[in-house]
Amino acid sequence: MEDLFAGMAEGYEAWYETPLGAFAIAEEERALKALLPPGESLLEVGAGTGYWLRRLPYPRKVALEPSPDMLRVGRARTPEAAWVAGRGEALPFPEGSFDVVLVFTVLEFVEDVGKTLSEARRVLRRGGSLLVGILEALSPWGALYRRLGEEGVKPWSGARLLTREDLRRLLGPPEAEGEAVFLAPEARPPFGEADAAGRRAGNRPALYLGRWR
Amino acid sequence: MEDLFAGMAEGYEAWYETPLGAFAIAEEERALKALLPPGESLLEVGAGTGYWLRRLPYPRKVALEPSPDMLRVGRARTPEAAWVAGRGEALPFPEGSFDVVLVFTVLEFVEDVGKTLSEARRVLRRGGSLLVGILEALSPWGALYRRLGEEGVKPWSGARLLTREDLRRLLGPPEAEGEAVFLAPEARPPFGEADAAGRRAGNRPALYLGRWR
Repeated sequence: MEDLFAGMAEGYEAWYETPLGAFAIAEEERALKALLPPGESLLEVGAGTGYWLRRLPYPRKVALEPSPDMLRVGRARTPEAAWVAGRGEALPFPEGSFDVVLVFTVLEFVEDVGKTLSEARRVLRRGGSLLVGILEALSPWGALYRRLGEEGVKPWSGARLLTREDLRRLLGPPEAEGEAVFLAPEARPPFGEADAAGRRAGNRPALYLGRWR
Repeated sequence: MEDLFAGMAEGYEAWYETPLGAFAIAEEERALKALLPPGESLLEVGAGTGYWLRRLPYPRKVALEPSPDMLRVGRARTPEAAWVAGRGEALPFPEGSFDVVLVFTVLEFVEDVGKTLSEARRVLRRGGSLLVGILEALSPWGALYRRLGEEGVKPWSGARLLTREDLRRLLGPPEAEGEAVFLAPEARPPFGEADAAGRRAGNRPALYLGRWR
């Protein structure tokens, strides 16, 4: 497997510093936090640089990450998590290890979506929660990511975009759902207004979140 | 070359009868008519069922169409045009034959975009106009068409989506431009309002039109 994220770790959070990026990431954080279940332990599969782990209020956090580059930066930036090298398709944990497993915009890049999800469920404690976020294939951002992928831009060149319907087919109906970022990549400020307009236009949001038992 | 449009001719205009389809096609017609140059003769490359030819005010209309199924239905529905079997990459006309050449959402399906455009220019009279319409790859509709293509739905399974920037690279700057359909495929009525919202959200329009000399 090619490391689609090689060399990207340092700049991975830079987009969140742009005005549009800051708006989008704040909307995503709001949607994610609204779905958080209670629990002691959290595993994030594909934790990247630990951006989300730093923001989530669990006493015990474990970060799984396959890219050595991301893992190195993540470990430095997010030392409160235990960092583990590994892939979503083969989690190096026994069954029932975690209260919450987060798979946030990661299914786009794994080799086997079904295996990754069944592994995530295997390591969940009975009654634990699986939180999955995807970049909606049908959103204006999905159109952009596909174009970038065609142009060979990483990581999009190796991405597989999913829809909420795909997740439903894979996991069944979620017990709760969330959405964020209805505006398009070329939206102009003020972004709150552009986002409301995107919703009115019938846009799929860039981020879809679901929570499953 | 597989005929991506085989068996589709009879139902090809059915979507225009739906409320959203009727809104979209009216917007497209408005945008196209705003760009029409004067002239006596019009060639449409990839004329389909003749939907546009029936609406365009040129005394001499020629329809080129590669799909036998489309050609048969087009000839019956649009008898005022001369129908010719052929492909955009090899136009069976001498140089300087037409005042206007229209290539409307056809580059998505030709084998060779560059050849099709150079052939279109070859058969234009000196001072004639080339009108090109594309389904914007970066629009919410582009996202939908790609998804349908992945699912094997024709004609999208054989489509190549372009952007306005692609056209500019191929043809240089246009002398005039048009846009239509800013709302998304899941927009709810009233559609005029949803369309204005799509523009505000930063959506690329589903249809981009350019006119070149």
